[in-house]
Amino acid sequence: MRLGVFDSGVGGLSVLKSLLQAKLFKEYIYYGDTARVPYGVKDKETIIKFSLEALEFFKEKKVDMLIIACNTVSAHALEILKANAPFPVLGVIEAGVLAVKNSLEDKNSNILVIATQATVNSHAYKKALIQEGFLKIEEKATGLFVPMVEEGIFQGEFLKAAFKYYFDKLKFHPDALILACTHFPLIAHSLAEYFGKNTRLIHSGEAIALQLQHEFDLISIQEEANIKFYASSDVEKLKKIANLWL
Amino acid sequence: MRLGVFDSGVGGLSVLKSLLQAKLFKEYIYYGDTARVPYGVKDKETIIKFSLEALEFFKEKKVDMLIIACNTVSAHALEILKANAPFPVLGVIEAGVLAVKNSLEDKNSNILVIATQATVNSHAYKKALIQEGFLKIEEKATGLFVPMVEEGIFQGEFLKAAFKYYFDKLKFHPDALILACTHFPLIAHSLAEYFGKNTRLIHSGEAIALQLQHEFDLISIQEEANIKFYASSDVEKLKKIANLWL
Repeated sequence: MRLGVFDSGVGGLSVLKSLLQAKLFKEYIYYGDTARVPYGVKDKETIIKFSLEALEFFKEKKVDMLIIACNTVSAHALEILKANAPFPVLGVIEAGVLAVKNSLEDKNSNILVIATQATVNSHAYKKALIQEGFLKIEEKATGLFVPMVEEGIFQGEFLKAAFKYYFDKLKFHPDALILACTHFPLIAHSLAEYFGKNTRLIHSGEAIALQLQHEFDLISIQEEANIKFYASSDVEKLKKIANLWL
Repeated sequence: MRLGVFDSGVGGLSVLKSLLQAKLFKEYIYYGDTARVPYGVKDKETIIKFSLEALEFFKEKKVDMLIIACNTVSAHALEILKANAPFPVLGVIEAGVLAVKNSLEDKNSNILVIATQATVNSHAYKKALIQEGFLKIEEKATGLFVPMVEEGIFQGEFLKAAFKYYFDKLKFHPDALILACTHFPLIAHSLAEYFGKNTRLIHSGEAIALQLQHEFDLISIQEEANIKFYASSDVEKLKKIANLWL
């Protein structure tokens, strides 16, 4: 089986990493729209246009299934992608919500969703969590974590100042923290340190690997996976980061 | 006369503002490639491709002159734009260097250039400053100031942490600080406070307005200027920011 993984840039590599660890597919086609990243600050219409262009790419590559690693695309374009694709399309949001449902028994738990502005504006997580019966949800746009991670800032005083800037006035101390952007797993360690051990971190990549195992009855294979990387600009840079992250 | 102003996003409004204050033109066409911003992290080839697409737009709009407000485009695509344009094309880098030359007598002055990674990689400022006889130049990529400004962070503890992160290990205390990115004039006040009153700030917009007056013998007009805004995505957002900045 050949799996397509689409992201607005390099961030989806954190999702690809979880998929590789689960060993569910033989071939992977990763495409990052690095020429037009970030999507998180763009409007819905633009996000849909770019996503449909990416879909054409994956159709040509004849993938059997497509994972939308980008939360912004999952929030705004998943339905239209599903409607236009001849193969199953899965987004990270439904996977993340499923993971919350499986790990939090108390519907009164405090859930904090951190994401880009576009993902927050869609309220996709909040709506899905409410449908699952959860009551206390705060969505917080923490868009600056994206360029900070891309600059290689995973810890330190500057990142702590960013946490203080974003989290100083939260309504509650979260029981669960959804890392609703592909870049955020790279600062998971610092976030865990900031919030303490009573906050459970939910990671999209791990969530989607679990969803695939449960819903599609996929089982781990032993063969070495074959991965091909494509990007709309500077594919060498993407490969370099892939070497670092994977 | 109709002046075109091109930028990768909204940042060029800081240059437009200086041009409006100098009252040199009757009509302005501002185009921001907001769907594909930021350019500062993209490769040279992509920057040239996008810039030539923008040039076609300005040809259609029949401008008499084009200002490249974006430092990244000025660094990587100015020559090719000049070669392909039927009207004069001016970049902010030559203007900035001219301003340094006019304001610093001592060629041993310490000059700090802060810019995006792509502008720093081009070493366009360093090369031009060396040609003018300056000897002590440090170029520093401070790319995170761009999304911070776009998030409305112009002062405060988080910005101070960013200054500390970027400037803690400078080779010297700068006599001149070139704000080599359109977004940076919005944090000029905080930068001035951080570096102290012995550091002179060089602002691209003011520099280019001066260059226009000197090289093209343009004089101030009294008529109210007419400004048209265009963007590759979310033109309403651009207009909203223009209302705030201008």
